[in-house]
Amino acid sequence: MTQAQMAQMAALYGPVAEDMILVDDLLESVKRVELAPLRRMLDHALAPRGKRLRPALVLLAGAFGDYNLNRLTPLGAAIELLHTASLVHDDVVDGAGSRRGRPTANAVFDNALTVLLGDFMFANAAEMVTRTGSLPVTRLFALTLMKMTSGELDQDAAAFDVGRDVQHYLWRIGGKTAALFATSTQGGAMLAGCDEEGVEALRGYGYNLGMAFQIIDDILDFVGDEAEMGKPAGGDLLEGTITLPALFYLEAAPRRNPVRRFLAAGDEREARLPEAIAAVVESDAIEAARSLAREFAERAAEGLAALPAGDARRTLDELGGYVLTRRA
Amino acid sequence: MTQAQMAQMAALYGPVAEDMILVDDLLESVKRVELAPLRRMLDHALAPRGKRLRPALVLLAGAFGDYNLNRLTPLGAAIELLHTASLVHDDVVDGAGSRRGRPTANAVFDNALTVLLGDFMFANAAEMVTRTGSLPVTRLFALTLMKMTSGELDQDAAAFDVGRDVQHYLWRIGGKTAALFATSTQGGAMLAGCDEEGVEALRGYGYNLGMAFQIIDDILDFVGDEAEMGKPAGGDLLEGTITLPALFYLEAAPRRNPVRRFLAAGDEREARLPEAIAAVVESDAIEAARSLAREFAERAAEGLAALPAGDARRTLDELGGYVLTRRA
Repeated sequence: MTQAQMAQMAALYGPVAEDMILVDDLLESVKRVELAPLRRMLDHALAPRGKRLRPALVLLAGAFGDYNLNRLTPLGAAIELLHTASLVHDDVVDGAGSRRGRPTANAVFDNALTVLLGDFMFANAAEMVTRTGSLPVTRLFALTLMKMTSGELDQDAAAFDVGRDVQHYLWRIGGKTAALFATSTQGGAMLAGCDEEGVEALRGYGYNLGMAFQIIDDILDFVGDEAEMGKPAGGDLLEGTITLPALFYLEAAPRRNPVRRFLAAGDEREARLPEAIAAVVESDAIEAARSLAREFAERAAEGLAALPAGDARRTLDELGGYVLTRRA
Repeated sequence: MTQAQMAQMAALYGPVAEDMILVDDLLESVKRVELAPLRRMLDHALAPRGKRLRPALVLLAGAFGDYNLNRLTPLGAAIELLHTASLVHDDVVDGAGSRRGRPTANAVFDNALTVLLGDFMFANAAEMVTRTGSLPVTRLFALTLMKMTSGELDQDAAAFDVGRDVQHYLWRIGGKTAALFATSTQGGAMLAGCDEEGVEALRGYGYNLGMAFQIIDDILDFVGDEAEMGKPAGGDLLEGTITLPALFYLEAAPRRNPVRRFLAAGDEREARLPEAIAAVVESDAIEAARSLAREFAERAAEGLAALPAGDARRTLDELGGYVLTRRA
């Protein structure tokens, strides 16, 4: 980690920031495999050091009970691995060429090997979660991957389908994103031996934070800075993924509008993309989406009331603000 | 199951044949998901009823201890799911169009959705194995998928590379195939509470049977009947996978030979395939490979000596003969 990264971690993750190095160490150990082509691919896939938000949530939730790093760290690493593996496969599925300013694994190694890389990482994540020593947490983990994959599948199967509504969108991002956030906090709480009420409060917090996170992600795909995000804007729409800003726009706009024209344009879609993005950005849809994200963040914060006050709770509370204001 | 299938199951799996229906029931339950596109894909992927050799091994191993079907059945179903999921991804990786006489999932649903289908099945398999109630068996399961994926990755990465030897081939099929056979018998024995010696004897049996099984598979790709196998012969070589018959042939053949010519032919490979296959088939390589398969089957049988005699042991003993003589 660089100095700047360490300062950001300390600001974001407060009492658990220093312990995040243990998650890093476990993730590093994953790269040490004998098979050279696999080692090269793992190096590439695990190189970009993101913010590790999900492992931080595991540790923060664990701070509400018996903060045992021997159990919490493997869950944090397992969840980060699962998240990364799912990105690796999503990039294959979407044919994505870059992510966070770097070429994707499928762009470097070809699709076939990248599918197997993702499989290996899923297996490694499953192995890692068993190191928590908890069968219920391991089971929760497997169920979460089922939800994540269902959400992704639905997104792919419903591409370019304008017949879905906001309810459907929320179900999908609940599976695709919020489920893993919820499992991070729920799993951390379970490992720390929190009581049922505490586990449920932390699960709810994670779920709502994850919903806010994904809505902001979907907004950034319209309004974000390409350089900061490391990928071109409008990628969702180009793949036919109709996210909340587009949904709100379509609900409010007249029947003939640039987004519908884009979706119906077939081979000429790419040319019509800038017009469609501009229409959404200039409408009230972005603010409406942001307002729903805020609502989820508020629900997350409200849920914390059931938990004992202290550094961990304050840090979770502030993470809601970070999720809403992040720019990449 | 048809009458003929039931008769074959009874002949092959003796004392556990009737209980195999419970594995079927669990696998049927996996198809009951809400998401329609996923349901269609699961129906397709789980429709062909194979011999369920791996789940049968789980139950047979379990018969050497506390034969508790509440724990053994989920492991059997989990292993069959894992096996099927890995075939689904392998077919994407290899771009295979048919398997056992049916179009592959990737041929019907496109690669992107099929990657996610496989992911869902892996997750479902992981969830299923936690139903055994055993964290050590769940952990073994995850480690097995790591080995399987490493074997597949190596196969893909080493395609068309004639620099590998028999040792390397055996390592690869050990991961790709024998690991899951070994986990079937080891896991069954662990769930049944067998003592360490029993677990190790059954693990060794499964491993050696799996090695024999894969070598025969690789032989059938040269000499098998296309109608019985439901896929064209020579598929391995066409993908650049140099299996044992080809390896033995290359070891014995002069430097200039039809297999080397095929491997070096680049775009014109397909035209040179029949010549390459014929060369291997007409050589002593097939018999040499068969002899090594027999050796592994004999090792499997010898390992059984450490186990108590009875129906289960006799059935395992006879499975070695089946594996050697199967035609598809």
